[in-house]
Amino acid sequence: MSSDRWQTPAHEALRARPGFDLAGLDHDATPGWEGDRDQGEERMAERGEDLLALQEKLYAHGRTGGTRAVLLVLQGLDTAGKGGIVRHVVGMVDPQGVALRSFGVPTPEEREHDYLWRIRNALPRPGYLGVFDRSHYEDVLVVRVEEIVPPDVWGARYDEINAFEAEVAAAGTAIVKVALMVSPAEQALRLRERLERPDKHWKYNPGDLDVRARRPAYEEAYQAVLDRTSTDVAPWHVVPADRKWYARLAVTELLAHTLEGLDLAWPPADFDVAAELARLDAQG
Amino acid sequence: MSSDRWQTPAHEALRARPGFDLAGLDHDATPGWEGDRDQGEERMAERGEDLLALQEKLYAHGRTGGTRAVLLVLQGLDTAGKGGIVRHVVGMVDPQGVALRSFGVPTPEEREHDYLWRIRNALPRPGYLGVFDRSHYEDVLVVRVEEIVPPDVWGARYDEINAFEAEVAAAGTAIVKVALMVSPAEQALRLRERLERPDKHWKYNPGDLDVRARRPAYEEAYQAVLDRTSTDVAPWHVVPADRKWYARLAVTELLAHTLEGLDLAWPPADFDVAAELARLDAQG
Repeated sequence: MSSDRWQTPAHEALRARPGFDLAGLDHDATPGWEGDRDQGEERMAERGEDLLALQEKLYAHGRTGGTRAVLLVLQGLDTAGKGGIVRHVVGMVDPQGVALRSFGVPTPEEREHDYLWRIRNALPRPGYLGVFDRSHYEDVLVVRVEEIVPPDVWGARYDEINAFEAEVAAAGTAIVKVALMVSPAEQALRLRERLERPDKHWKYNPGDLDVRARRPAYEEAYQAVLDRTSTDVAPWHVVPADRKWYARLAVTELLAHTLEGLDLAWPPADFDVAAELARLDAQG
Repeated sequence: MSSDRWQTPAHEALRARPGFDLAGLDHDATPGWEGDRDQGEERMAERGEDLLALQEKLYAHGRTGGTRAVLLVLQGLDTAGKGGIVRHVVGMVDPQGVALRSFGVPTPEEREHDYLWRIRNALPRPGYLGVFDRSHYEDVLVVRVEEIVPPDVWGARYDEINAFEAEVAAAGTAIVKVALMVSPAEQALRLRERLERPDKHWKYNPGDLDVRARRPAYEEAYQAVLDRTSTDVAPWHVVPADRKWYARLAVTELLAHTLEGLDLAWPPADFDVAAELARLDAQG
């Protein structure tokens, strides 16, 4: 019996459509999923197997001249669980086919270029599952809230980003954008854990509390991102992330669904199979 | 009860010492391991947990100014199982802390530089587990056997490689060199599978049979590598690879042992923990 308890498919249940209101989000909800945690973990393991097989096919496709790739864009406030998605979801597939890139404060070299320069350089090559831990969206999130550039500059970026993503998608890369959203209360719990456990101190940054204090401004910036960049070729998925198991299950499902949508076949042999078998037999 | 059935530690049982004779290798053996396959898989899962925790500590170390890294160098003939090590061993740790690089035929840009140029560029940064799927050793293996450069050129490389690796080790990177060795019979079985299964055709290259036909020359080149580059700072481990479970168990153990040897601690907080807890409480 199938363990599938998605009553509404994840890519529909989570998609940010026009009029989506971030302020009304229930961070503890499990949109589309009608099962409990155990059932969610069972389903995630099952889909993880699918994902592994699908990603191998994508890799094979890329190794034989194919042009398709997948790009997972992960955004979220501190402690939203981006790292857990990388470890537990991306960690289910073959490292050989993964191209992971984290975007922090731009380096001096990066600052000499347009904000999309480092992003373009990190796009996955054909056959790869690219993962962006933060992304060009920081250039309309932290950069907007902290007033790092003037409003006319960040204000122009939404359209620039849409044009950029349309170009990337047209070149063959399926883009999966995920915004992980935790409640202020859950965020406080997770920050407290980082402060109380010495093995987690390295994950804590005093700046996290400054950001948390400006949460309304960040929510406003996220709302603008959802309003202006959830396009048909690259829609946003807003994932309530207070329940880690749900967030991981949802991203697994979004990735598996996207890879299935590529509808790839195993590449045909570009050599004479019978002749090669005969050569092998002759070698003994 | 511990599942540890290493009678001789892997790093001792597998180390290529002076006088090691590759021609005498039993490819089906399980050096040092006194258990069966089930016990091996159980132990591997257990050590995989250790490896995950150790690698997180290494990553934390790197994020807080530490200088240590680990580099796994994988060599082996076609079908020896390098890809399986990446998928099943490296796949057990957090993708965030892994820097994987495959080295194929040099690109035009790479050819304009010294053979170690692309290798230096791919060295893991502090905190990372770097993995080389093939490496600079191709420059004294395929390059030697296929006579791509004259003998005096490749002949000088053994000492160059030793000097290079000594420099890398001195800078803080622990180097784990693994040569996976399959028997000609097992290799034929694996190549046959790639030919008989359409979902494996993409892994097959007619050149693999040409290489297989020159196995004595490749073995001679591997023997020279073991004789001349199994140094104290970067010894070779020769892993019989006819039994995939053993090869994966052995590499898991070698990596876990190496990470344990770094003896890292969780980085101390570089902020006032009590003050931050007070700030968090004040935010509510």
